[in-house]
Order: sequence, then C-alpha cells, then structure tokens
Amino acid sequence: MAQLRIALAQINPTVGDLAGNTALVLQAAREASAAGAHLLAAPEQALTGYPIEDLALRGSFVDASRAALEDLGTRLAEEGLGELVVVVGYLDETEWVPRAGFPAGSPQNAAAVLHRGSVLIRSAKHHLPNYGVFDEYRYFVPGNELPVVRIGGVDVAVAICEDLWQDRGTPAAAAESGANLLLSINASPYELAKDDERYDLMRTRAIETGCTVVYVNQVGGQDELVFDGDSLVVAPDGSLLARAGKFVEQLVVMDLELPEADLPVEDTVASNGMTIRRVVASAEPLAAPPAPRVEPVIEEQPDEHEEIYRALVLGLRDYVRKNGFKSVLFGLSGGIDSALVAAIAVDAVGAENAYAVSMPSAYSSEHSKSDAADLARRTGLHYETVEVAPMVDAYLKTIADAGTAITGVADENLQARVRGTILMALSNQRGHLVLATGNKSELSVGYATLYDAGSIGGYSPIKDVPKTLVWDLARWRNAAAEERGETPPIPANSIEKEPSAELRPDQKDSDSLPDYELLDGILDLYVKGDKGIDEIVEAGYDPVLVERIIRLTDQAEYKRRQYPPGAKISPKAFGRDRRLPITNRFAQKADAAAARRAGQEPAGQQERAGH
Amino acid sequence: MAQLRIALAQINPTVGDLAGNTALVLQAAREASAAGAHLLAAPEQALTGYPIEDLALRGSFVDASRAALEDLGTRLAEEGLGELVVVVGYLDETEWVPRAGFPAGSPQNAAAVLHRGSVLIRSAKHHLPNYGVFDEYRYFVPGNELPVVRIGGVDVAVAICEDLWQDRGTPAAAAESGANLLLSINASPYELAKDDERYDLMRTRAIETGCTVVYVNQVGGQDELVFDGDSLVVAPDGSLLARAGKFVEQLVVMDLELPEADLPVEDTVASNGMTIRRVVASAEPLAAPPAPRVEPVIEEQPDEHEEIYRALVLGLRDYVRKNGFKSVLFGLSGGIDSALVAAIAVDAVGAENAYAVSMPSAYSSEHSKSDAADLARRTGLHYETVEVAPMVDAYLKTIADAGTAITGVADENLQARVRGTILMALSNQRGHLVLATGNKSELSVGYATLYDAGSIGGYSPIKDVPKTLVWDLARWRNAAAEERGETPPIPANSIEKEPSAELRPDQKDSDSLPDYELLDGILDLYVKGDKGIDEIVEAGYDPVLVERIIRLTDQAEYKRRQYPPGAKISPKAFGRDRRLPITNRFAQKADAAAARRAGQEPAGQQERAGH
Repeated sequence: MAQLRIALAQINPTVGDLAGNTALVLQAAREASAAGAHLLAAPEQALTGYPIEDLALRGSFVDASRAALEDLGTRLAEEGLGELVVVVGYLDETEWVPRAGFPAGSPQNAAAVLHRGSVLIRSAKHHLPNYGVFDEYRYFVPGNELPVVRIGGVDVAVAICEDLWQDRGTPAAAAESGANLLLSINASPYELAKDDERYDLMRTRAIETGCTVVYVNQVGGQDELVFDGDSLVVAPDGSLLARAGKFVEQLVVMDLELPEADLPVEDTVASNGMTIRRVVASAEPLAAPPAPRVEPVIEEQPDEHEEIYRALVLGLRDYVRKNGFKSVLFGLSGGIDSALVAAIAVDAVGAENAYAVSMPSAYSSEHSKSDAADLARRTGLHYETVEVAPMVDAYLKTIADAGTAITGVADENLQARVRGTILMALSNQRGHLVLATGNKSELSVGYATLYDAGSIGGYSPIKDVPKTLVWDLARWRNAAAEERGETPPIPANSIEKEPSAELRPDQKDSDSLPDYELLDGILDLYVKGDKGIDEIVEAGYDPVLVERIIRLTDQAEYKRRQYPPGAKISPKAFGRDRRLPITNRFAQKADAAAARRAGQEPAGQQERAGH
Repeated sequence: MAQLRIALAQINPTVGDLAGNTALVLQAAREASAAGAHLLAAPEQALTGYPIEDLALRGSFVDASRAALEDLGTRLAEEGLGELVVVVGYLDETEWVPRAGFPAGSPQNAAAVLHRGSVLIRSAKHHLPNYGVFDEYRYFVPGNELPVVRIGGVDVAVAICEDLWQDRGTPAAAAESGANLLLSINASPYELAKDDERYDLMRTRAIETGCTVVYVNQVGGQDELVFDGDSLVVAPDGSLLARAGKFVEQLVVMDLELPEADLPVEDTVASNGMTIRRVVASAEPLAAPPAPRVEPVIEEQPDEHEEIYRALVLGLRDYVRKNGFKSVLFGLSGGIDSALVAAIAVDAVGAENAYAVSMPSAYSSEHSKSDAADLARRTGLHYETVEVAPMVDAYLKTIADAGTAITGVADENLQARVRGTILMALSNQRGHLVLATGNKSELSVGYATLYDAGSIGGYSPIKDVPKTLVWDLARWRNAAAEERGETPPIPANSIEKEPSAELRPDQKDSDSLPDYELLDGILDLYVKGDKGIDEIVEAGYDPVLVERIIRLTDQAEYKRRQYPPGAKISPKAFGRDRRLPITNRFAQKADAAAARRAGQEPAGQQERAGH
C-alpha cells in the first residue's frame, strides 16, 4: 500500500477572470503544500470559470486560457511548489479539422496535470452534457482519452464532471485501467436534493470501479447559476470519507492509503474504445504520510430551507461582487416578496449596502408603509420614500390630453411601472444594482407588470421561488434569527397578512388567483413536471381550476414566448414549458428560454398588474 | 424511365398550431392532387411548426403531434387524396430506454410518408444540429435509418434538413441505396447569402449521389427566426431545375423523368451502418405524366437590400399575426431608425394598423417633429403626439424632494424611459404590440437606454441591422417606391441629417461614437467575426479606436451578461461574443444569449442615453 495526501480545492472562480482564477488555484496550492499534500485537485474549468458559453468560440480566449495554464505551472515551480501534482480544469482546443456543425476552433473542456512546472498530460471531457443548464455540445468537441497519472506509486485516473454521470465511457475505462483513485473535477450547479444524488452516484462509481472516488466541485454564484461545492471523497466500499461544506470555499485535505500500481506505463485501448494514457509523476510509493496525520472532515448538511436560503444569498452576493457593484436597490412594499428580498439582500451584501425604497400609491395601505419601515428598523438597511402620485397624475393627464384615457388594468400597470422608473433613475444616479422582487408563482401566471419594480433591474433573487416557499423561507429566516438571539428581520405582519398588489381599492391577490397552495401545486406539475391536464387532475386537483391555471400560464408564457394564444392551442392538451422548476432554480438555462425573450413580450395583451 | 410529378409545399406553419398546420398541408395536398402530382413534400416539422424547443419535452404534445399525423392521413383518404404520396415532418418519439443526459421521452424530429390513409413509413433525423440557432441535441434523439420509398416505380430516399449538410451519414447511405430521387424536407432559416450556399450544397449532393435532389423549405417568421423558403430541385448533373420564390408561400409542381428502381425491396445496412429501409407505395412505373405537362418555375432572386428588407417585413408581419395582434405601436422621433421601423411596419401590417407616437422632449429639434409628421403624411399611418416634459418634471421634482437630484446621464435616461412608459400605457389601454426601434450598432456599444422606446416592447424589427445598413435599407425602400411611381415613405431629411439622441442640448451621436462606417466595420469583425484586437488592427483599423470600441462593446456586453468589467478582463485580449451578426440575423439563438438576460443588466453602470 502507498500513502497519498490529497487536497480538494473547493474554490469560487469567476467566468473570464483568468488572472484571478489562477491566483485562487495558486493560493490553494500554497495551502495544500503547506499541509503536506501530494496532490491538489481544482474544479472543472477552474482557470476560466464555468460556464464560459460563447467565450469558448473566441480564439483569443482559448489562447489566453492555455497561456494561463502554462503560467500557473511556471509560478508553482517558481514558488517551490513544483513537487505538488496539481490537476486543474481549463479551456483548450484540439487540432481537429473544421467540420460543419462543430464549434469553430474545436474548443475543449480540458483538464491538465501540472508537475514540476510543466504540463504532464492534458485531456478533454468525454461526455458533453447538453440538457438542463448545460449546452456543452454547442461549445466543445469531446475527447476520447482517460489519463492515468502515477503519483507516489498510485495510479490516479482523471475525469471531468459529466464523464462520471454517464454509464458508458469513462467509468468503464477507469475500471479497466487498474487505477485505484478516480478523480473527478466538476462544475456542478446546485439543485434541491442534488447532494443526495451526487453521493449516491459517486458511491456507485466507487463500487463499480473499485476506486476511491474524489469529487471536487466549484462553489459560488455565476450569473443564473449557484454552485454549492459539496466536494466528496468516497471509499471503494461506498462509504463517505470526507465531505466539504455547502456554499463555502474550503480546502479539504485528507490521507488515503491506496494499493500500489503494478501495470506497465504504456497506453492501452479500453474495450469501449477509449485510449488509456499513462504518465508518471512519481513512481515511488510513499511509505507513510507526513506527520501529523490529517483527519478528514465530513461537514454537516443544512436542512432544506436553510440550504435554499443560503443558495439565494450566495447567488446574489456573487452576482453583485463579480459584476463590480457595491450596493443594491429595490422597492420595499411591506409585502412578503420584497421583505424576503430585503432579508436576502442584507445577508448578502450587508445592511450598509442595501437600499430600499418605499413607493406608496394612492391605494397603498397604512400597514404597507409601516411594515416596510418596520423591516428597515429591524435590519438597519437604508430606507427612503418616493410617492408615485405626481408622476402617475402627470402621465394620466398628459396622455388623456393627447386623446387616450388610461384606465383599469392599464392604469394599474402604469402605477407599477412608475416605480420601476424611479428605481432605474436612482440606480443610474447613484450606481446601485436594481433587484427585481417578483416571485415564481406570480411570474408563472402573468400576475405581474412588465418593467415594474418586480421585474426590472439586474438580478431577480426570488424569481424561482414559488409564493408558498417565499413564506416558508421568511419564517425560517426569522426563526433562525430568534435561535441566535437576533432580531428577526421580517415583520410578522408581512408574513401573516393577505397578499395584495394594492393598485386599486381593496385589491387582493385572491381576487385573481386561487389559494397559493393550490396554485403552486398545479404549477409544479404543469411547469416543472411537464404534466398534461389529465395527469394533473388525476393528482387530485379540480379540473376547472387546473384548466384555468393552465390557461393563465399559457397566456403568460405566450406573452413571453410569442406562443399562439389559447384559441389555436388547446390548453387541455399541453402548453409551452417555461421550466421554472425549483430543482432547477440555480440551473436556469432552460428558464433562460423564457427570460431571453423578456424584451419580446406582446405587451398589449391581458397584462395584469402586480406589485 | 418513369415519370413522376412532384409538388413542393413551401408553406408557413405556426409553432404549436397542430390543427392549423395540418390544414395547410391538407390544402397543399388538394392543390397538388388537382395538379396531377404523385408526390407532395411538406417541410420539416410541418405539423408542429419549427422550432418547437421545449414543447418536444412535453409528452402530451408528442401525443398530439402523432395524433395529428394519423388525422392527416385519415383526412387525405376521406377527401379522395389517398393515392397522393405525402411526405411530412412532425414530432414523434422512440422507445429508447431513458438515459442520463438524453431528453425526457426520447422525442424525435421525424418524417412520415402517408399513403392511402395510413403511415407507410416513419423515420427520424440522423444529424441533429446544435450550433447557431439550432439546439436539436437538447430536444431530440437521433435516428439511424434512411427510408427509401418506391413511388411510381422510382425509389425516393427521404432525408431531413441537416442530414444533407453533413458529409457522412445520409448522403453516403442515399448514394448506396440506389435511390434516384433524394428528397430533403427542411426548416432552414434565412441568412444573408444562404441561398447560394444552399444551391451549392444541393448541387454537390446531387452530383455525389447521382440523385435528383428535391429540397423543400418552410417560409415565414417564427419568433426570432425568418424562414425564406427558396425550395429547390437540382438534377443529377447539378443543374437547377426549379426554384421557389423567397419569403412567399408557394406550391411548386414539376415533372421528373427518372430511372426505374431495380433493387429488391428489402432492408439493407449501408457501409456507414445506417439501415436502409425500403417500402413500396406504387411499384408500377408511370409511362407518361398526366397532360398537360407542367413547366417548372425558376423564380428570380431579389438583390441583397430587397432580400433583407423583405425578411424584416415578413418577420414582423408573422410575429404580429402568429401572436394574435392586429396593430403595432412605436415611437417616431424623426430619426432614421424609427423611420425605417415605420416603413417596415407599414409594409408588414398596413398603415391602418401602424400607430406612431411622437414624444418630443425639451431638447427635441423642430426638424425632428416635422420629419416625423412628414413620414406620417407620406405613409398614412396613425400619428399622435405626447409631450414628455410633464412626467420628466414630476420625476425630477419628486425624487429631488426625496433627497436625490437626477442629473447628467441619469437625467437623459429618465427622459428616454418616460417614452417607454407612455408606449406601454397606450399598448395596455388599446392592445397594440409595441415595437422597439433600436439598431444593432447602438445596442452593441450600449449607446441606448434600458426600457426606453428603443428597447421595450414585444418585437425589435431592426435590432440586428447595423446603422450603416439602416441607411442603405431606407434608401433602397425609397428608391423602390420611386421606381413604382409611389411616394417614398421616408423623408429625405431623416436619411440625410446627422444622428442625435436629442436628450441634451446639441447632442450628436458623434460626441460619443466614431463614424458609423468605422464602428460597423469594427463590430463586424469583433462581434460577428470573433476576432481579437490584433486581427482587427491588422484589418486596417486604428488601434486606439479598436480598443475603445471593444471596451464599449465589452461594457455593454458586461451590462447585458454580468460579465466582469474591464479591470479583470483585458479588452485587448478578448471579449464576450454577443453574436449579433447580420448573417445570423434571422438565426438569433446565440443573440438570444444576450437578450435572455436583458432583464438582468447591471442597470446602475455607465448606461448611455440613446433615442
């Protein structure tokens, strides 16, 4: 047996920031080396960040990524860290002949093994995911090799993310390769309960291949995605040896005792056709780990509400930071949606960087204003008030003078939209990032105004949170504060009162929508579950209600995606999937299919006012 | 030799409208049958429309598509059209075992051959394009069969779109199959000069395979795409036998004399592994075509400016129609962008359905108002005026009273944004579709205001037209009117005057931007060409200017895509590709990568006011 001290760098790279990301890996290498590690693993595309999307097609970026890799090797050696074997993801390209339908320049999602200042071996991802949030078939060409690196006499096979999620391919080649450690570098976005799925899969791979499986994931928010970390080490019998925390940067160091490699160092072809390429970093087995022995950590998993809340906070914090903002601005109505956004914002960027604006209209209740002010006092965020009446009056009068009276829903939308314009003006003048406060339920059924405070701005923290979960998270956040002896951030009244857009006298959400428990239940089946009306009714919902919700959703979807209206498509049969599932919350590529046309909504159709 | 009269149904389906699309195919079948045709070919996914995107993943929609196909067969037979062989694209599914990373339900992009009321054979697309506007790898699983149908004693091989664009696969199998007619059904979006590319490719396939190649394409606007039709028939020697018009629905009927099939009707495996499946519709060769003989048409191709203009008109017209709108509304400033949009709108939906609003500010010149009014007189569209000053004043005063003075660029943006709100209010009240009037050049460099009249609304007719092309198209449209003895729609002054946003005294675009010839030249290389700064400078542009334009574009891109600002990414090395190429104009999937995050722009950053 041979000893190997491994280090998992659960870092938070930024897409495109090659210099900054290189510095993160270098810092992890310093710490790993100081901790006596022999092998450091950094995430998939750690040098470029993930997902790089169209950057893959820009030749100058590919060149810069390759140069960053060489630079990292040089700097490791210069700092005396050359003996540490570093596995790191980056963007490379292959020499393939250009072919119709393949991405220009033949970019590859690659891994490199650095040792003694240079690149020992490079390989490219074999399975390119192209579902959910992934579009890799568009951006990369696949590799067909499995690198096996001998480190301290132990054969280590290197895989990239999806390579281990597919049954055929890499796991089979790894099993045949005789490697005893299977290292997977990942950029795997957070989804609800994905931690269980991940561990189950790595357990399966460990048992199948007979390898100790090391799974390193990135952490952090990147645009629409949140990566949760959750890096793992699993023994060949499937038992969990180590587990990093979620939503935190962490260097996990641990000692492994592994069988010595005994196969000749020559390339072979696995029975599935993949080439197994072998190289040697160091052939001599390490008899004992450097003292003192490192005890592996197994971090506790947060419960579901805490997990979601922390994902929302990290997503916002990194969005603000990675885009160069210092502060956020949003409308604070006294209602539950903006109250939850405010709590998330304060947790993400600090009360000193959170700016809330109360924008009461003629129909705003006293409790709306007092609940908003109460939240401001509880959290200490910046709070200001701008009345909307003068602008609303000016629009109504000027447009009426020009010949058109603005009434009814158009009037409600106008009030709401004035709020959006106020926020944009303050943002333009003072430099805040504007947060949209709309929730998933109201957006799904179109109970919202385009370009209002719920939908404008740079980031929409709860757009994938159904209304019922908004309440749950608010209650959870308050309870967590109480547990710590802190002031709960959200006024109880904001949680308890009946939801209302307050855009006409005595308006209530329930005038237009069913109970949110029912609404969210149906939306979950229809939007997230791709179910048709028959299946939803079978699940126990009233057929008339189901039909109505599907019609509302299709209309909202139609508004978003230029989908032919109900007259042509029976809402009984099917409807366009907008894909706003909470399990895909932080995996919102498909959702992006909706968002990407936000600027293309048929705006004149039955738009509903929201808050 | 055998005679075959073929009919190409260049129709305009609507995504999701199974009943309406079925009716289009049925009507084409009636006409084809009346014209004595033996074979009718309808486009790829003619029954579902193209592209269906996420609808492919909804089981109830797959079921409905399959039912629509059966229904079409039944109705053909019931109407006495059963002898006509009909090839039609639809959505099907395969029985594949669910597999990680493959689309749920295993949907397929399928073709069916209908004869005598039932489905003679079904097959699925072999090559799934996943680049540019195509995402088929996300939505479909591929097929591996080539159907060869004997019709009137002639063997006809059936392919779907991309199948003929890839060298390996279908063309090779078709050549081995002994078929003499290779029929390709398509949904191929318009790109500049794609007609030449198409004919070149079909010519190559005809010569390679020894087949007469029949290429049927759909026509019409569908969301971001425009399909140009341009259906073709090419002889085995590569000569053009027939060509449909562009941007029009058309049934092309022609007689072909083809070799009789002499191979046994049994399935074989081609040397590339594809299964060649053979079925017989009618084995007896037709000695002579039904009288009278049909002379094939070869429609003339429009010149480049006419082609682009017609694409823009058809895209808008179908967007309005397919989304259930009757009229459009937009701001008319007197400048060239909104003038071109107005001309397009009038041509697309008629002057009686086009509503233009002049929204002068304190800085609007007299000629702006008079040029707008002049265009209204020339075209006869609806014209109204709403002053923005009362609302601007109300915002400035109310927000100042609340403690923040809105000045400079924030003030310019506010004026612009008031216009957006006016248009939305009129749209909500009266039901028009709002058109955004921004052009590609100003959007690329961020010389625009979020949520203003240039960017709000449901459809953005010239978002992919660079400013220099805006002028060219305006001149072309006026010249075309003059040629027909009509009043040119666009006032000469709108074309000739210096562009200005008119949001502060004496403002000119040239205060902020270089000459548009230079700007568009650099943007073309940087955005469409994926070139780095060195390559652009080599093309003859001033390095200082190139660096500045790249920085502006990266900042605008950064605003759109949460990209780290210049400090972290050197604009010298690379920049995020926004992909707004004119060649992809009607192929805007990648562009959608920008648009989809339009709601997520860091709004507080150096936003520039535009008009």
